[in-house]
Amino acid sequence: MTADRFYHPDHALNRFQDQRAAFLSGDDSPSQYLARCLQTIATREPEVQAWVNTNFEAAKKAASEADQRYAAGKPISAVDGMPIAVKDVIQTRDMPTEMGSPIFKDRETGFDSASVDALRRAGALIMGKTVTTEFAFVKPGETRNPFDTSLTPGGSSSGSSAVVGAGMVPAALGNQVVGSIIRPAAFCGNYAIKPTLGALHMGEGLGLSQLHLGVHAASLQDMWAVASEIATRAGGDPGYPGLFGAATLGPPLRPERLIFVETEGWAKCDDGTRAAFQKMIDLIKAAGVEVITRASSQLIDEFEVKISDAVRLCRVICSFELRWVLRQYQETGLLSDDLAIWLDMAESLTLDDYRLALSERQQMRQSIAGIAAFGDALISLSSVGIAPAMDFLADSGEPEFAYKTGDPSFNAATSALGVPAITIPKMAAQQMPLGVQLIGPAHGDWRLANIAKWLDTEIPAVAV
Amino acid sequence: MTADRFYHPDHALNRFQDQRAAFLSGDDSPSQYLARCLQTIATREPEVQAWVNTNFEAAKKAASEADQRYAAGKPISAVDGMPIAVKDVIQTRDMPTEMGSPIFKDRETGFDSASVDALRRAGALIMGKTVTTEFAFVKPGETRNPFDTSLTPGGSSSGSSAVVGAGMVPAALGNQVVGSIIRPAAFCGNYAIKPTLGALHMGEGLGLSQLHLGVHAASLQDMWAVASEIATRAGGDPGYPGLFGAATLGPPLRPERLIFVETEGWAKCDDGTRAAFQKMIDLIKAAGVEVITRASSQLIDEFEVKISDAVRLCRVICSFELRWVLRQYQETGLLSDDLAIWLDMAESLTLDDYRLALSERQQMRQSIAGIAAFGDALISLSSVGIAPAMDFLADSGEPEFAYKTGDPSFNAATSALGVPAITIPKMAAQQMPLGVQLIGPAHGDWRLANIAKWLDTEIPAVAV
Repeated sequence: MTADRFYHPDHALNRFQDQRAAFLSGDDSPSQYLARCLQTIATREPEVQAWVNTNFEAAKKAASEADQRYAAGKPISAVDGMPIAVKDVIQTRDMPTEMGSPIFKDRETGFDSASVDALRRAGALIMGKTVTTEFAFVKPGETRNPFDTSLTPGGSSSGSSAVVGAGMVPAALGNQVVGSIIRPAAFCGNYAIKPTLGALHMGEGLGLSQLHLGVHAASLQDMWAVASEIATRAGGDPGYPGLFGAATLGPPLRPERLIFVETEGWAKCDDGTRAAFQKMIDLIKAAGVEVITRASSQLIDEFEVKISDAVRLCRVICSFELRWVLRQYQETGLLSDDLAIWLDMAESLTLDDYRLALSERQQMRQSIAGIAAFGDALISLSSVGIAPAMDFLADSGEPEFAYKTGDPSFNAATSALGVPAITIPKMAAQQMPLGVQLIGPAHGDWRLANIAKWLDTEIPAVAV
Repeated sequence: MTADRFYHPDHALNRFQDQRAAFLSGDDSPSQYLARCLQTIATREPEVQAWVNTNFEAAKKAASEADQRYAAGKPISAVDGMPIAVKDVIQTRDMPTEMGSPIFKDRETGFDSASVDALRRAGALIMGKTVTTEFAFVKPGETRNPFDTSLTPGGSSSGSSAVVGAGMVPAALGNQVVGSIIRPAAFCGNYAIKPTLGALHMGEGLGLSQLHLGVHAASLQDMWAVASEIATRAGGDPGYPGLFGAATLGPPLRPERLIFVETEGWAKCDDGTRAAFQKMIDLIKAAGVEVITRASSQLIDEFEVKISDAVRLCRVICSFELRWVLRQYQETGLLSDDLAIWLDMAESLTLDDYRLALSERQQMRQSIAGIAAFGDALISLSSVGIAPAMDFLADSGEPEFAYKTGDPSFNAATSALGVPAITIPKMAAQQMPLGVQLIGPAHGDWRLANIAKWLDTEIPAVAV
């Protein structure tokens, strides 16, 4: 499909917040907006294959109720009337939650997750469930990259990234344990936030200590509106203080200094990707922002060393935490071979191995506190390159652990750290999207989003 | 039923670990032990009403497999062949999980919780599900106290306490957010542990940040064996290091010094209960152990002040954390009026109210670290008195919040603190059980259990 590629960083996504003035003036309405989304879905879904189950009739009914509220000048919230897609590991009261596994085919839970419940009460239209890898781990679903259907959309939030990238909806919920939001969002040209650990209430969750609920969106404004409404109505995960920050973004915030972090990813980038990012850094410097690296400070260098084994660490933590349930899934005979390998690894671990991994993670979290004050944010790529082919097998260094939806080397550290990360679709290589990733200190989500807004609006896009 | 009361602290419970030598020698077997448990269940269940759903056929089959392992001299673990009851908020693959609510009547989840899965793999017999209050909150089920059926067994782990107290099984799983293990265990003459927060993996859980999985048992040895097998096979909750300590208890550990803590409970005790506990303290002192109080140290006094509002704090934290799901339950029309009041309170709270409560809880956790070194453990009662009547309404200070299964004033602080607590059935008043509560520092569960063993074996029982 390479001949059909058409991506450029100025590619228009299907933004929602821009429409609200027209909803209030009567020039447009949530129902009309929804009809345009459904038209795009009808056009693109046959090749993108991003949806598992949908409930468009419920969305239409909710849209007509939103129409009346806007007509009366009284929308409930910034997401009133907003069509939203939901990753299919997150529960919904009116659709099954299958988690990418035949074990849970057609499984109805009867209730919404905290995030979905919050969004519904804020007036959003819950459109349907999007394809996830099996239990948000490694085995891909059928979804294709909307900008080249021979390529992966990334994962595990494959469908949520694809529906936003394809312009089907303005926002979608995803979640990330290693690289499951930021990487596929970058592959599909989304804006996305993996907020501070625990900042958005998941409801049930998958039982993983570093699972983050996050938002894919067509703009930073749409992204923040969805996150803020979840936090306001449902709070953060139990025991966490929830997302901090105002209901809307502030003015673009120009950083004084950014810290370029290599993580495990930089060494794995191809030349084109490096060139694109280097151009981006040059443009940022040209705007008067200092960019420092591990060469600038021994503390930053030590931080890079401390996070340099994050991909493996995430594998240990996540596989051990799900061992009890993967065992039971395997007994059904319906667990994939891809995931059975993770169970095998989990069975080789002791409780003390897990405790050691938790201790290493805690040290990583302390080490980022030690460097945060050196800059306004960290900056890196969101992935080691553009979306790879559907049949790609990322080299994890251990051949049995194939990352079939893309290499998570730029993402594992931020997931383990539990700090906010935002990807911005400001670059392209080979006519496919590449993301710039900004990373902030824990609970600094709102300030980080305003820095992202500065980069999005003030720095030119890069295409190589 | 007062005329039928027969409880004395020397009352024999249905211990399991003592039988294992006979299983190995062939003088007894798990199947024969199970048959005796089933006989007791047949006799006592009609009046105690502790079980919601059972699967005795599966237990018999598992017992016959355990018979073979003991006959071969190769039991899997210390709980191989042990009949165990499971509180009906914890999922089981072969029985419904109804959570004390008509909303979940006959609801099958198809999988075991982490704890149940671990125990099954260790050879335990999963007997059935025990009555819980509605969603482990305030509305009681039908279960009666096994020592006087006109009285409550306590809650929320009502059935788990009753089946152990009645001698139906040697152990049962419960969980505690405020006082749901220690208080009913004391009312029913159980040994029980509410371990360090997160020490035993729950699997799914109810989405509450201070929910603890714990164990009711007929002896400290049975209690520890169950806890240890869960920890070894499933670990702690995701992100927690799990239960520390050896697989079996050590020798009785005589403390040098205990800290008597009043909490919110002491002021609410009746004279008989105070007299019983004072006798217990005198016996402990007579054994050469120093017992200090808030009068001994300003730090201890400050700790008492810091934890003096724990019951209210727990209400704020727990109601806010479940607001999102209680809203949905209310929409089914099947939420009790008792719990609807908690939802009303939750609706009055803001995210900042919740953050304030988390901050207060964190300060409490820091304050206990400041006093831990003053003694080997804290000591208090496990409840403000014997089990009250079935139609009791505990005065919470706010009339709308009735604690119908007993006052949690001695329990809320330890739940908020997340530190281990063990109750020992060493006292009686009015021919009903009363418990001594020992409280240790976080992760000091094993040492605390050995101190409990000393108290259990070296200090005479008290009856007033």
